Amino acid sequence: MRAILFDVFGTVVDWRSSLVAQFRALSAELGRELPGEMLAGQWRGHYAPSMDRVRTGELPWTILDDLHRTSLRALLAQHGLDLDAALVERVNRFWHRLEPWPDAVNGLHRLKERFVIGTLTNGNLALMVDVARHAGLPWDVLFCADLFQHYKPDPQVYLGACRLLGLPPSEVMLCAAHNYDLRAARALGFRTAFIPRPTEYGPAQRKDLDAEEDWDLIAGDLEDLGRRLVPAL
Amino acid sequence: MRAILFDVFGTVVDWRSSLVAQFRALSAELGRELPGEMLAGQWRGHYAPSMDRVRTGELPWTILDDLHRTSLRALLAQHGLDLDAALVERVNRFWHRLEPWPDAVNGLHRLKERFVIGTLTNGNLALMVDVARHAGLPWDVLFCADLFQHYKPDPQVYLGACRLLGLPPSEVMLCAAHNYDLRAARALGFRTAFIPRPTEYGPAQRKDLDAEEDWDLIAGDLEDLGRRLVPAL
Repeated sequence: MRAILFDVFGTVVDWRSSLVAQFRALSAELGRELPGEMLAGQWRGHYAPSMDRVRTGELPWTILDDLHRTSLRALLAQHGLDLDAALVERVNRFWHRLEPWPDAVNGLHRLKERFVIGTLTNGNLALMVDVARHAGLPWDVLFCADLFQHYKPDPQVYLGACRLLGLPPSEVMLCAAHNYDLRAARALGFRTAFIPRPTEYGPAQRKDLDAEEDWDLIAGDLEDLGRRLVPAL
Repeated sequence: MRAILFDVFGTVVDWRSSLVAQFRALSAELGRELPGEMLAGQWRGHYAPSMDRVRTGELPWTILDDLHRTSLRALLAQHGLDLDAALVERVNRFWHRLEPWPDAVNGLHRLKERFVIGTLTNGNLALMVDVARHAGLPWDVLFCADLFQHYKPDPQVYLGACRLLGLPPSEVMLCAAHNYDLRAARALGFRTAFIPRPTEYGPAQRKDLDAEEDWDLIAGDLEDLGRRLVPAL
């Protein structure tokens, strides 16, 4: 095994708490209550359906920043929240300032000692650059949906990353907190590592609480994955 | 200005000395004198012509690792040097283990404090990942020819990087030790920074000793560029 690629939203960064905190700060700044928890959850609820519109060809290729903006506008209209265009843009960029899970930075540094580490994400590259800089994620390489103009779980994303790395899928591991992602990767010959993020969607999460298949590795978090794949000298 | 992209071979890493040192080490290991200085220079001499065969359509898209291998084989045959396939492969990977110029790592760290920093290179991504890890280059992002299936100075490379960054060329600077590269970038609206590397090709270098146009910045090296673009607090 030579490289480990990581899903980012949910697996490496805690998008929900990060959005909620930014909505809270904005509410305080504007002196106007924005329902951050509800907006964060519903905004993410648009995520898969919006990508599916691209995956099925209903929409031409559209980067995630732009899908996010369309979803956000719909959501604000639905709730009768009137924000001007500059503010919509600023809120849309909340996704560029996501915080890592507490184990992520240490775990990635340890894994990087021995493996090439990179993203394999539906986020667009400009977004991922900002997230990496904000969260201090020490990636060797960013594989983002816009490099391939496909969204996971389309095989073009997984195989495109392997092609660019010059590695067969059997020498690449995908680490994700989502079983669907690992399923797609395994079907193409990747190795797989699951880490649970049972509060990614908040306290009432019911999906992806556990590994649903016998993934090659099931670790508690990224520090645990690091300890198991990069033993201390 | 938001991002600075860097040519890599010659600008950030000292490919010639790095190849010569690796040929010397291999000669010692094999107990057989390989003419490292001559091979390094002649190998690099194949670089532009081999990419031109791709750029003109004579060859289909071919990554630099593969162009390097073809050139190396021709060169070894020309000099009657018989190396087995595994050794050819090992020598070809000398390009994956290039040393940075002494100012490069410090300069990049400083520039990264304020700007997104990335490569804009004709090297392929797998090669660039290895060079970055070997040389300790703290890139935010790697833009490599195989992302675009074009070689510099084709505009697709420069504009493709801007598109993925979500930035207009006017907010991106190219830093290079080669006037031709800056010329292509400026024609597309990039900002430009020249740093001289007067021994890139060895003591008898005659090309790119000086800035040939009024580039936006002309710095002594990457530390100097860092001091000028990221003043101390």
